[in-house]
Formats: sequence, structure tokens, C-alpha cells
Amino acid sequence: MKMRYAIIGTGAVGGYFGGRLAHDGHDVHFLLHSDYDHVLRHGLQVFSCNGDFHLQHPNAYSSTADMPQADVVLVALKSVNEALLKTLLPPLLKPDTLVVLIQNGIGLEQDVQQWFPKLHLAAGIAFIYSSKTQAGVVSHVGYGRLNIADYSCPDPQRIVQLVADLNAAGVEAHRVEYAEARWKKSVWNMPFNGLTVVLNTQTDKLLQNSVTEHLIREMMQEVIGAAQHLGVQRIDPSYAEQMLEMTKAMVPYSPSMKLDYDFHRPMEIHYLYTRPIQLAAEAGFPMPRLQMLEQQLKFLEASTALSL
Amino acid sequence: MKMRYAIIGTGAVGGYFGGRLAHDGHDVHFLLHSDYDHVLRHGLQVFSCNGDFHLQHPNAYSSTADMPQADVVLVALKSVNEALLKTLLPPLLKPDTLVVLIQNGIGLEQDVQQWFPKLHLAAGIAFIYSSKTQAGVVSHVGYGRLNIADYSCPDPQRIVQLVADLNAAGVEAHRVEYAEARWKKSVWNMPFNGLTVVLNTQTDKLLQNSVTEHLIREMMQEVIGAAQHLGVQRIDPSYAEQMLEMTKAMVPYSPSMKLDYDFHRPMEIHYLYTRPIQLAAEAGFPMPRLQMLEQQLKFLEASTALSL
Repeated sequence: MKMRYAIIGTGAVGGYFGGRLAHDGHDVHFLLHSDYDHVLRHGLQVFSCNGDFHLQHPNAYSSTADMPQADVVLVALKSVNEALLKTLLPPLLKPDTLVVLIQNGIGLEQDVQQWFPKLHLAAGIAFIYSSKTQAGVVSHVGYGRLNIADYSCPDPQRIVQLVADLNAAGVEAHRVEYAEARWKKSVWNMPFNGLTVVLNTQTDKLLQNSVTEHLIREMMQEVIGAAQHLGVQRIDPSYAEQMLEMTKAMVPYSPSMKLDYDFHRPMEIHYLYTRPIQLAAEAGFPMPRLQMLEQQLKFLEASTALSL
Repeated sequence: MKMRYAIIGTGAVGGYFGGRLAHDGHDVHFLLHSDYDHVLRHGLQVFSCNGDFHLQHPNAYSSTADMPQADVVLVALKSVNEALLKTLLPPLLKPDTLVVLIQNGIGLEQDVQQWFPKLHLAAGIAFIYSSKTQAGVVSHVGYGRLNIADYSCPDPQRIVQLVADLNAAGVEAHRVEYAEARWKKSVWNMPFNGLTVVLNTQTDKLLQNSVTEHLIREMMQEVIGAAQHLGVQRIDPSYAEQMLEMTKAMVPYSPSMKLDYDFHRPMEIHYLYTRPIQLAAEAGFPMPRLQMLEQQLKFLEASTALSL
């Protein structure tokens, strides 16, 4: 059985992964917002380090009310708009639809599950360097992995097939364990997203300076400590060193929060910082450095809003 | 007996306090650097909310080697130049000369005492809003208190007379207890100096936002905790609330470190942050938020140096 896909948020992430599936011949339906008219006329263009492609007539929609029900929904919205899912998702859902949240942070699946108690949910953990460079144009310049972690899907076969579809479409994908995957991604996301904003810099400069390299190591240990405190076993202090080495080998990188701040878009502070810090605090584990970073980001966001 | 004064650093602070003493008829000798020629020709102008005055022919010098020995030396250099005192002070010193360090931070007297083991030292704790607006011109716009704390002066009368001279010259001055005064000043200095730099803002905006107000309260408690851990008894958590209320009543204020950073001058990170954080750590008291602020400041200073 071929699965029908719905892509909620056709940007740098949703446009790339959904585009790969469509380019491989899958039945993919894209929700667009500001780019809807452009994509209707000109299609979706993906420039990719793994090979460019163009979708001449993608199934494009401006409302989920017009879209068919799907077997798999890939959600690639910014998490600042998470509550939109309350109205976006229902038209797409069959009883066994799998919804995959390809978003960053902690607490996303918990909230969506509360809004839709019977929903079959998974987390999508993306490692990709891509951006939407103009209307209908996605530029994918590095990496491109998408790991899938079951959260509340009673049918493991659905996830197996999604992973197989992705790999067949040229996207490296693996099944991973939910809490471990979400927290491991946070070990990288929490220090680098906020610090590049507050210090107006990129990953390479933070690691070339031994003082901020040390700060990042301390922050990573706060995340690892929180995860361990919350019962995530398969993550240990040495993971910080792996992440530091991996980042040093990367091209100079502006995390998504840095791009959001520079372009005066709201930052994903809630799920990237507030929720994990709250969870850790409730479990008796303080994260003073990351809490201070959260406080600094909230100040900057409030200042930016004032200047708009 | 009238005391002879030497002023090391005739800027916003030294120019004001030394100027008041000279204006009141005291024998005051000023060390100048970039403003030497201008002050020789045009004198020293002080615009002050407590009354303007002009010194037509102040005793101005470009080297302490040309200055007479003094009874009291007021040091108002930026502490980034502290090691200059090794060569600046000796020509001014008699066996009983009192050297007063009107500077911000923790560890200043300890270092100078190590360089001059027999020196009679005091701390000057200034509460003043002033700036050098151009060569030979000091603009004093608010406050103006100068408290004096004995550090290693065997003659209490010398400090009594200094305090009396200051008050007679129109400068509110009091004798205060050394460790308590230095740490109390740090309760204000440590949060506000660094945060206004990192978040590119002023005191009022930090306190109008409840998130950063909370962060500042947490930082103040770190300083108070460190002081208590180091045996400074007369400082308790309620002092943070006093400082917050005092700051809310102030005009919007850019602390000296913010001005230094904006004008690409080196920041007083060492004595304002590194030393108190080290002292507290050695006593087993961590200051994670202020250490993170120190780390952020060091990154910004290194980045600025690169851009010069």
C-alpha cells in the first residue's frame, strides 16, 4: 500500500522532505501560506547538495480544509505556531493517520497529544542545513537526515514504512528512541541557538574562543544532567564532547533561532528553552545557565517587538 | 595641617572629586594623559548639578615623576590599567601617604598591597553619574557621594581628615566598612554593568521587563551569597530589593562598562567579575549566572578587539 502524505508547512524543512517524497513519485499534498500563488504558477524548486529537482505541479493548498485525508502528516511549522494545529490537523485525520512533528524542542508531542488524545504521534528529528531563499525555492546546502521516533503510534509498521519511503526517496532516515532523540538534539540546540542570538555570532566563532567553548560545554552538561534526571538513560556526559567535535567539523553555522531573530521573526523560545527548563525544575534539577539564556532571549524578543 | 592631594586619572571621577577639592582651596595636583595640553591652556571645566566651576590654572602634570609627594593619592584610573600603578605611584609616596582606590570591583586593594607591601591603602566607593564629555570638561549630572573605607591605614586620623575635606568641599562622604562597602557596590555593579552590554540596553529597560528583573534579582542574590560565604556579615538578601527599588527610581542609566564597550574601550571584566567569582569559587560558592555573564563579556571583548 502506498501512503498518502500531507506536508504542513512547506518551507526549508517541509519543502525539502516533502519535495523528496513527491519527486520519488509519492502522493504528497502541500499546505502553503505566503507562497501559495507562486507555487501554483511556478511549482516548487529545490536546490540540493544531493541533487536539484523541480516539482512542476505539486498538489498545493492554502487550507487543510481543501486537502484529502492523509496516512502520514509531516508537520514542519515553526513551533511558535503550534496551537494552529488544533484547527489545521482535523481535516487531514483518519483514525490511523500518523502525525510526525518535525520540530525542535521538548514538550511538543505532549501538547499535541493533549489537544488530540487519540492521535497517533511521532517525532521527526531533522539534521539539515536548508533555507527558503525565496518564494517556492528551497536551498539545501548540507546534511539532510530525518530520524523518526514513535511517541504514541500503536502500529509500528506505519513508522517502518515511513522510514523506508524516506530512504527510498534519498533521505537518510532511521527509527530512533523518542526521549533519547529529543534530548540529544536539545544538547546541541539549547546552547547554540540562544548563544548565537545573544552574542550575535555563529557556531564556529563560539568554539574558536576557549571561554565560550567552556560555557557551551557547561550548558551541554546541564541538558545531559536534566535528561538523566528525567530518566533518559542512554545519554551520558561524553555526548557533549561528541557534539563539540561534530560542530567544530561543521561549516560556520547560524542556527534557526539566529535566522529568526535576524529576520525579526518570533523565536522558538517556549519549546526550546521554557519547557525543558520547567520539566527539569519540577524534577528538582536546576539549569541556571540555560535559564539565564532563556531570560536574555525573552528580553531581546520583547525589545524587538517594541521596535517593529 | 592641610593635606596635599594627588589625583591619578583626571577623568569623569578623578576630575570631579579632585576638582571639588581644588575649587575649595586645597593643594591638589592632577595627573593627565590625553588632555594634558588642553588643560594647561584652558584649565579644567566642571559642569555639575551641584554647581559649575572652572579651575583656571590647575596643577597639571603629564608624569608623576614631575609631581610632588602627596599626603593623599586618589586613584581614579580604569582598573584595566591597574598594573600602571607599579610605576605611577612611587614618586608620590611618603611613608605615611594614603592611597585611595576609587575604582569598581573586588581584589584591587589586594593586588596593589602585594605590589607595595607597606602602602597605606583605602577604598573609595563612588556613587556618581558623570562623564568626560570632551578634553578638559567633566559633566556631572547626578548623585556624587564618595565613601571611604580603610584597608590598611594605621592612622585613622588621615581618613577622618579626608572625609572632612571632601564634605567641606561639597562632596558627601562617609567612612564605611571595607568588605561590606566593596561587596555592596558589587551587588549593583555585577548584574547591571554586564547585562546592559550583552543585551545592549539601559538599567530602566532591564527592570521594566519582569523576566530580566527576575534575572537581576537572582544575580544580586549570587553576589550577596558570595559575600556572606566570604564572611561579610552585614549584607543580607533584602539588600537586593533596596538596590532594585533604588535603580527603578534612577534616570535610565548606562553603567560605565556599557560606555566602555560602546566606545570600544577595554572593559573592567577582571576586577568586576573574574576576581569575585574566583574568590567565591575558592570558598566553595558557585556563581553560575555571573560566571556566564563574565564568559559572554569576554567573548564580546575578544570579538570587538578583532574588529578594530
